[in-house]
Amino acid sequence: MKVSIFKSLEVGGKIKNKAFDEQSFALRKKLLNAQFKLQDLGYPVIIVVAGLDGAGKGSVVHRLNEWMDPRGIETHALWQVSDEEEARPFYWRLWRRLPEKGKIGIFFGSCLNSLSQENTGGKSGAARFSNNCQAICEFEKLLSDEGALIIKLWFHISRATQFMQLSQDTPRKQQNLIVPGNAKQSHKSYKKTLKLVEKLILETDSKHSPWHLVSAEDNNYRDLTAGQIILEKMQAHTGAGQSGEDTGWTEDTKKNPTILKTVDLSHVLAGDKYKRQLRKYQARLQDLAWQFHAQGRSVIAVFEGWDAAGKGSAIRRVTAAFDPRLYKVVQFAAPTDEERRHHYLWRFWRQLQRDGQNTFFDRSWYGRVLVERVEGFASPDEWRRAYTEINHFEQQLVDHGTVVLKFWIHISPEEQLRRFKERELAPQKQYKITEEDWRNRDKWREYELAIDDMVARTSTGCAPWTLVAGNDKCFARIQVLKTFCKAMQATLKNER
Amino acid sequence: MKVSIFKSLEVGGKIKNKAFDEQSFALRKKLLNAQFKLQDLGYPVIIVVAGLDGAGKGSVVHRLNEWMDPRGIETHALWQVSDEEEARPFYWRLWRRLPEKGKIGIFFGSCLNSLSQENTGGKSGAARFSNNCQAICEFEKLLSDEGALIIKLWFHISRATQFMQLSQDTPRKQQNLIVPGNAKQSHKSYKKTLKLVEKLILETDSKHSPWHLVSAEDNNYRDLTAGQIILEKMQAHTGAGQSGEDTGWTEDTKKNPTILKTVDLSHVLAGDKYKRQLRKYQARLQDLAWQFHAQGRSVIAVFEGWDAAGKGSAIRRVTAAFDPRLYKVVQFAAPTDEERRHHYLWRFWRQLQRDGQNTFFDRSWYGRVLVERVEGFASPDEWRRAYTEINHFEQQLVDHGTVVLKFWIHISPEEQLRRFKERELAPQKQYKITEEDWRNRDKWREYELAIDDMVARTSTGCAPWTLVAGNDKCFARIQVLKTFCKAMQATLKNER
Repeated sequence: MKVSIFKSLEVGGKIKNKAFDEQSFALRKKLLNAQFKLQDLGYPVIIVVAGLDGAGKGSVVHRLNEWMDPRGIETHALWQVSDEEEARPFYWRLWRRLPEKGKIGIFFGSCLNSLSQENTGGKSGAARFSNNCQAICEFEKLLSDEGALIIKLWFHISRATQFMQLSQDTPRKQQNLIVPGNAKQSHKSYKKTLKLVEKLILETDSKHSPWHLVSAEDNNYRDLTAGQIILEKMQAHTGAGQSGEDTGWTEDTKKNPTILKTVDLSHVLAGDKYKRQLRKYQARLQDLAWQFHAQGRSVIAVFEGWDAAGKGSAIRRVTAAFDPRLYKVVQFAAPTDEERRHHYLWRFWRQLQRDGQNTFFDRSWYGRVLVERVEGFASPDEWRRAYTEINHFEQQLVDHGTVVLKFWIHISPEEQLRRFKERELAPQKQYKITEEDWRNRDKWREYELAIDDMVARTSTGCAPWTLVAGNDKCFARIQVLKTFCKAMQATLKNER
Repeated sequence: MKVSIFKSLEVGGKIKNKAFDEQSFALRKKLLNAQFKLQDLGYPVIIVVAGLDGAGKGSVVHRLNEWMDPRGIETHALWQVSDEEEARPFYWRLWRRLPEKGKIGIFFGSCLNSLSQENTGGKSGAARFSNNCQAICEFEKLLSDEGALIIKLWFHISRATQFMQLSQDTPRKQQNLIVPGNAKQSHKSYKKTLKLVEKLILETDSKHSPWHLVSAEDNNYRDLTAGQIILEKMQAHTGAGQSGEDTGWTEDTKKNPTILKTVDLSHVLAGDKYKRQLRKYQARLQDLAWQFHAQGRSVIAVFEGWDAAGKGSAIRRVTAAFDPRLYKVVQFAAPTDEERRHHYLWRFWRQLQRDGQNTFFDRSWYGRVLVERVEGFASPDEWRRAYTEINHFEQQLVDHGTVVLKFWIHISPEEQLRRFKERELAPQKQYKITEEDWRNRDKWREYELAIDDMVARTSTGCAPWTLVAGNDKCFARIQVLKTFCKAMQATLKNER
């Protein structure tokens, strides 16, 4: 299952009305305090409320005005561009609305509209899009350098929820009439919009003004989460509250079910059917492998997964289809002495093969945000910045023409336990199970959160994650082989 | 006289052999100390030695190896790309050569070659160029985030010096034979190269890895300055030495004669000749003004200069050619209360007129890096970051289609004194001279340095500074009018 960075926002997150009332009462008092404190200290606050149509951005803005002192808040809807604005450089429309020191400005709609209207296709379109994103970063940096607090919220809903929201015509929904009347259309272009938004968010997410992604499936959850984020950022800005450390986007929305919940582990693929499919896809893959070689193209595939999830056996089913001269399997354990004396990405760069050669990584650079994060080998600052570094790294691979595939092989903790016990009994597999494996099991929940973050921050359009249901090994292998074939075929097709 | 950011590097800066020997002896000891300290602490150091052909990059690298312990230094010439490198993503060639912790890597040639080979013309070419620059910034940030010290040196020589260097065929120059043999050609494209370099430097100059521009007119001066910069950066990185504050590029090369030295103040334009020229250029400008209006185009002109340099009278000669409905003169003194509650650029943004309207600024946003810097109203951090902010601001104006003109009207201190005294005597001009003006005279030298930095960091290709010789007021006015006509004509021509 290929996933986008938004997927984990569609999982759960509900708050009952009674709980909402209690929590919002407490939150309100704290928000007011924080607002007055920032006012005294004279920091301007800029809150960007952006999100998909139907996610309830308007309701959030209402709520914020209700929770805080509206006399210190100015709300600016950036829907229509006046002729006065069109006759001046783009950022004039923002400069004229900037809150003064001590005030809060809520910007509603953001610059996404104008970005999405531009042609972003092709190489030059993409470069222009990047340039616009860079201009946004420069603008935000300029403001934050002067002490402004910038809080950017993105409200996400699933396609199904959007459909429901936009097709409701109850009077309560009247406010939607203000939106340039293309609700149905915006639903049609859901996928396309999301792709654009993903790029926008990844490229304009910076240390001084990170994005916060909020699930808007449930109204109560949406409002409380938004309020909580704003409170934390405001407290951190004045030095009150927690560490003031930047927490990045997904950790805000941390909730009980993680993205792994969406993987259906019940699939089974039985004997003969499995064998037939294995033969079919391996044959197809073999063919594709030679075509890739002929064109000087490469695949880099990353295999990650729980201990005993079956990474090794999945890799073997893939390599069986490749001529031995065409691939290399690289396994990563602890770094060597020499590797330790370099940047952590160095040891992966040095393993890059020539064009036309394929590399399969059994564990990879994602160790930085998995084991190194959970075990504390990397500091929070280090693993947080690793997401961006990894995205840039993979972008460079893709720009060079490489196909990047990333698999997370998922199994349930029960299935893992079963396999561990099996291994202990089978003499030829005993070496595969160590004390450490048992210890890692205790950190299952921490790993779950790390995986959720990893997927949310690195499942980019150019190198998305594939979550593989691994409880049945045969089913998992076929999924992996299918993903290989699909991606390679798509690449060859685009080539022509 | 239109100037580029490199102009001030062509002014003076010479060190005699005897002084060189003494200074280099002292420097060497300190450099060795700093090298060993960084080695102990385990920071990698990356020194980029870049510059125009004939600037003596090779000699600098020799010198550095001589001054420091060559066992800790690896030099990498990035001239030719191997087929191994071509078959992998671009940055692989750099990753494989990165120095390990505690070592120094000298990179020689830098990525300029590959950048300049790409098509950088047109809108999409420019966007791609920016993208490449962004990738460089990301790469450097990644390294510096891990503790690497990055020192980037750019060696500049004037066109005349380059010609001399490249046409010498003495045996000492043999090393040049290694350079892909197009020395003569590279001289031909001097101007084009410089334009590209300017963009590269402005776009890849960042807080964590700023550029240092070094004048290479004199070998001794070149080597000592480079060594001094490296020493300071190394000391700052280990916390030894000075504040560790980032000093930006031009302050390193601060030397006695500043860019203002290049303005020839002896020009005089006498009575009748002046009148004829005034009529001629005002008539031409009037014509251009209406053409601009018809096309919805605008000019934004900034007038800066010493007290009593004649800004006001120059502006009046310009406005005489414009219909009063087409322009606005904005004068800036201390900011108002409301303005103080915003970012310092806010008060300039709010003065932007609609397309088709022209604005003449009598003093401007450059106050940030002139009076506010000299008087200490802005902190070093604030005025240093203002250069970039101003460049981005003007880039946005130009991108929107506005013509940006910037004049510095220069007069000698003696001429200023004469005018001050004259003003004190003339009753109708007495109001023009205050205590403050006299005080400012005492800071002449500080202003000179600030002006030198300002020109070096903001005289960009899209909005260059024009230095006006102002000792003779008539001559100055004609220069200003001519510059207006030339720039507006060029714009209209490109339009067609």
